[in-house]
Amino acid sequence: MATNTGPGTLRPGGRTARVREAVLRAAGDALAEHGFTGLDLGDIARRADVGRTTVYRRWGTVTAVVADLLTDMAEQSLPRTETGSLLGDLRANARLVQRTLVDPRQGALFKAVIAAATSDPDTRRSLARFYRARLDEWSPCVTQAIERGELPADTDPAEVIRAVSAPLYYRLLATDEPLDASVADRAAEAAAAAARAGAYVRPAEAKPE
Amino acid sequence: MATNTGPGTLRPGGRTARVREAVLRAAGDALAEHGFTGLDLGDIARRADVGRTTVYRRWGTVTAVVADLLTDMAEQSLPRTETGSLLGDLRANARLVQRTLVDPRQGALFKAVIAAATSDPDTRRSLARFYRARLDEWSPCVTQAIERGELPADTDPAEVIRAVSAPLYYRLLATDEPLDASVADRAAEAAAAAARAGAYVRPAEAKPE
Repeated sequence: MATNTGPGTLRPGGRTARVREAVLRAAGDALAEHGFTGLDLGDIARRADVGRTTVYRRWGTVTAVVADLLTDMAEQSLPRTETGSLLGDLRANARLVQRTLVDPRQGALFKAVIAAATSDPDTRRSLARFYRARLDEWSPCVTQAIERGELPADTDPAEVIRAVSAPLYYRLLATDEPLDASVADRAAEAAAAAARAGAYVRPAEAKPE
Repeated sequence: MATNTGPGTLRPGGRTARVREAVLRAAGDALAEHGFTGLDLGDIARRADVGRTTVYRRWGTVTAVVADLLTDMAEQSLPRTETGSLLGDLRANARLVQRTLVDPRQGALFKAVIAAATSDPDTRRSLARFYRARLDEWSPCVTQAIERGELPADTDPAEVIRAVSAPLYYRLLATDEPLDASVADRAAEAAAAAARAGAYVRPAEAKPE
């Protein structure tokens, strides 16, 4: 029997974990194939070869499945690379984001979730949590660069990491321009240069205009 | 009688121009209110107080209306500001983009069109044309900065302008973080700093790795 335990109480490798894995993979496939508006719990259950009742009882809505998928993606994402230099670390981050966005399945999945987030507040919050987790994972490469004396002491780590991803997402979503490895390298170089110049130093509190 | 002339042959101020203006305003309102998937030519005609036949004959599809709306938005957009310094110009650009994205109607409209572009190739092309027009409008502020000796001679102007917008769109669409004037100013400062450091210099042809 399916139990009513949430994702936080999974036994790794148990039946509950296997059901979740199958459902999230099926949801990702469906999202990549026909977007958020085409998502349907019955279709997800069929693709996952899991009983409809289990899916309805455990997740209830497609929005909840997408939220759980984003939680899982954040948990499964690769740990950051440590190269010993700020530019090396940011380039590794940029290349990872770029490869994800140009991957046919992953890229389509992100586009679908971002499109859904423009009109669905729950998905917007789930997506923001995903990016928060990725920012937290990569921010230490900026902290370490500060410790090595590469960057001003009061540099905001998250701002530097955001600056690496932003040009890649802008091309993907807005300008529809090429998104190759050279674009990733340039994003990393620009973020590093701006950070060195102090552009991401935290503003002083109540700074006069 | 409505004629079959395209938007390129409008007499400014004539009936054809007034019909187009009313239809595009109605389409923008509808997009901002309930997104692209809720768009309907009959609803647009009703909102615009224009005959359905005219709207169907002249545009034919909601995708064509959105394409024409983006063309009109590119034409109606404010001309660039000239402040005499790169940082001043980029800050003016960043503030203009930021104000647009936080404006309730305009921000909702952009989100709706970007969401539609993730799954509709025609809308993706129309949106890309809109950004191309904005890049062309603002690129001379970089060219002038090169002429003033503020930037390396082979800086790619469009890359600098993209770098100003990218962090703003990234917050709007991905991370759902605050998007206030200080974020705009920081985007301008980071783009200027990275440009000064040579991060947007055009790569040499066939550059060896």
